[in-house]
Amino acid sequence: MRAWRGYMDGNQRLMEILNRELQDAHDLSLADYRILVMLSESPDGALRMSDLADGVLSSRSRLTHQIRRMEAQDVVVRDTCPEDGRGVLARITAEGRRRLAAAAPLHVRGVRKNLVDLLSEHELEVLADVFEKVDKAIGER
Amino acid sequence: MRAWRGYMDGNQRLMEILNRELQDAHDLSLADYRILVMLSESPDGALRMSDLADGVLSSRSRLTHQIRRMEAQDVVVRDTCPEDGRGVLARITAEGRRRLAAAAPLHVRGVRKNLVDLLSEHELEVLADVFEKVDKAIGER
Repeated sequence: MRAWRGYMDGNQRLMEILNRELQDAHDLSLADYRILVMLSESPDGALRMSDLADGVLSSRSRLTHQIRRMEAQDVVVRDTCPEDGRGVLARITAEGRRRLAAAAPLHVRGVRKNLVDLLSEHELEVLADVFEKVDKAIGER
Repeated sequence: MRAWRGYMDGNQRLMEILNRELQDAHDLSLADYRILVMLSESPDGALRMSDLADGVLSSRSRLTHQIRRMEAQDVVVRDTCPEDGRGVLARITAEGRRRLAAAAPLHVRGVRKNLVDLLSEHELEVLADVFEKVDKAIGER
């Protein structure tokens, strides 16, 4: 359990500092940031709410609250899905892309300073392998 | 950035599945569970709210909401700190200890199945080392 405890504590601390940095300087939470990244990398800058909920650590109802707060900040809009007229899409706005671009350098620096620069090449490789395995194993269930 | 992306995705998925398992079977979120563990391991089963906020990925105001929900479930109580009469303590109840003990085997199995059993001895060691480094580096700032 040493690995698990160490991971839970280190991970919490890392997420906390990355969240605080974004919040203080750019008024975005780490969760907001992740959503903006996912949307910005999707065709037309939009994803169905159900696909977005799968992509971030969130229940559908929690995501709905979050997207509503982000709508109030003008960084996303909700839309009816054109294909089936039923699903709801979240779409990044021009303002959302601007905010994401403004926040990205700080976030990337934070990831470097608090994770990447602390580790050897080998540790980074193991880290990538470990979480690819986890992602794959859970995805297959 | 491969390590970072892989880690963010795998970590999200892992936390999501552990959260869902606890929620479905024991009506506790992973955040609730972590708080109960921290309290159960403290002297008298109690911690100041400010120390608890440092220990979990949470702002003070978010933690207050969460502790309020946990109070409604009778797993914690809030108390005035006896030492200075100002700080607020959260304390695990007998019911909280019972719920934690009931949930722990499932959670430990989940951690094994979705992380520990997927990895080699070496990968587990690297994982522990990596997050100890992260925790220590961030703690020193």
